[in-house]
Amino acid sequence: MTTPVITFWFEFASTYSYPAAMRMGALAKAKGVSVEWRPLLLGPIFAAQGWKDSPFNLYPIKGRYMVRDLERICASLDLPFALPDRFPQNSLLCARIAAAVEGPLRERFAQAVYQLQFGEGRDISDPLTAAEALRRAGLDAALVEKAQTDAVKQKLRASTEEAQAAGVFGAPSFVAGDGEIFWGNDRLEHALEWALKGHL
Amino acid sequence: MTTPVITFWFEFASTYSYPAAMRMGALAKAKGVSVEWRPLLLGPIFAAQGWKDSPFNLYPIKGRYMVRDLERICASLDLPFALPDRFPQNSLLCARIAAAVEGPLRERFAQAVYQLQFGEGRDISDPLTAAEALRRAGLDAALVEKAQTDAVKQKLRASTEEAQAAGVFGAPSFVAGDGEIFWGNDRLEHALEWALKGHL
Repeated sequence: MTTPVITFWFEFASTYSYPAAMRMGALAKAKGVSVEWRPLLLGPIFAAQGWKDSPFNLYPIKGRYMVRDLERICASLDLPFALPDRFPQNSLLCARIAAAVEGPLRERFAQAVYQLQFGEGRDISDPLTAAEALRRAGLDAALVEKAQTDAVKQKLRASTEEAQAAGVFGAPSFVAGDGEIFWGNDRLEHALEWALKGHL
Repeated sequence: MTTPVITFWFEFASTYSYPAAMRMGALAKAKGVSVEWRPLLLGPIFAAQGWKDSPFNLYPIKGRYMVRDLERICASLDLPFALPDRFPQNSLLCARIAAAVEGPLRERFAQAVYQLQFGEGRDISDPLTAAEALRRAGLDAALVEKAQTDAVKQKLRASTEEAQAAGVFGAPSFVAGDGEIFWGNDRLEHALEWALKGHL
């Protein structure tokens, strides 16, 4: 029997991607599902839906609710939570680095970025924060510079287009091997169930 | 010790209110939480957020996803699911009837309306469907007419304003005794936990 696979589409500016990124590893391992971590940029995807800003800013009442909801969820998971002063943040720098890093180190880098941003309130558009995330993941901090090549930029653009073509409209999203899409941290268990059984 | 209470704000046009309405009774009973069922109209609440239509129509890709998501959720709960041809539906008639019915019969009427709409694909703006929901709930079908008084209209308007003042911006929403708000069928368990313990 082949190992079931899900694709985990994440965006560093996405709050709910934080608990998903922190929960994913252990849950997928327990279920025997293999995870492909893929960075994307929500900017072009939101623009295609007619949004020029984050839903947090477009709908302030809903935005405040989502911050509170996330705070509760993180508390229940014993995850630190500190919303950065500037929010949502510009995630481009870290998304390019994630696109440049392959294999299991991408997961470690992504978790370090989320931890810095939503666990410690740091600004991930700052190259010093990105370098710190690389160090925490056991990677070379020089990747902050080295990831800014045309090839990496193009790779990230292509990833975002691939996600969009698969039907992804938000983050986090999980796509099972048969193309079934699940959106949101609260659908992570559903996605893993589906990857295993083809139904919930 | 007093029984913990949550307020369940529902809108008949809201898809995710359907599984919430069907799950609520047994889950709340198992936890020992008392539930106050309150109808509201999302129209004025969405308008205050700048939406002139349902999110299902404003964002078609997300709308299609939500239908699929709901289909999966209903299948996993063994709930029938049949999206009506015209969707979202005009819920005003049934919302007024729900406002006119007090006590446990309101829950039974609400469940009958959801069952007819999302389980059987019926048009709940049709007085014949509303009468059928009343009959299934053991109520007098004449309430279809009798609920269209100024007093009931005003009661429903006041309910919607009360929900809005409590911070409700969508449906289903659950408000714990201390004012903590939870939004969405997938937060029902959280809301009951919170009502019991004051944390997740």
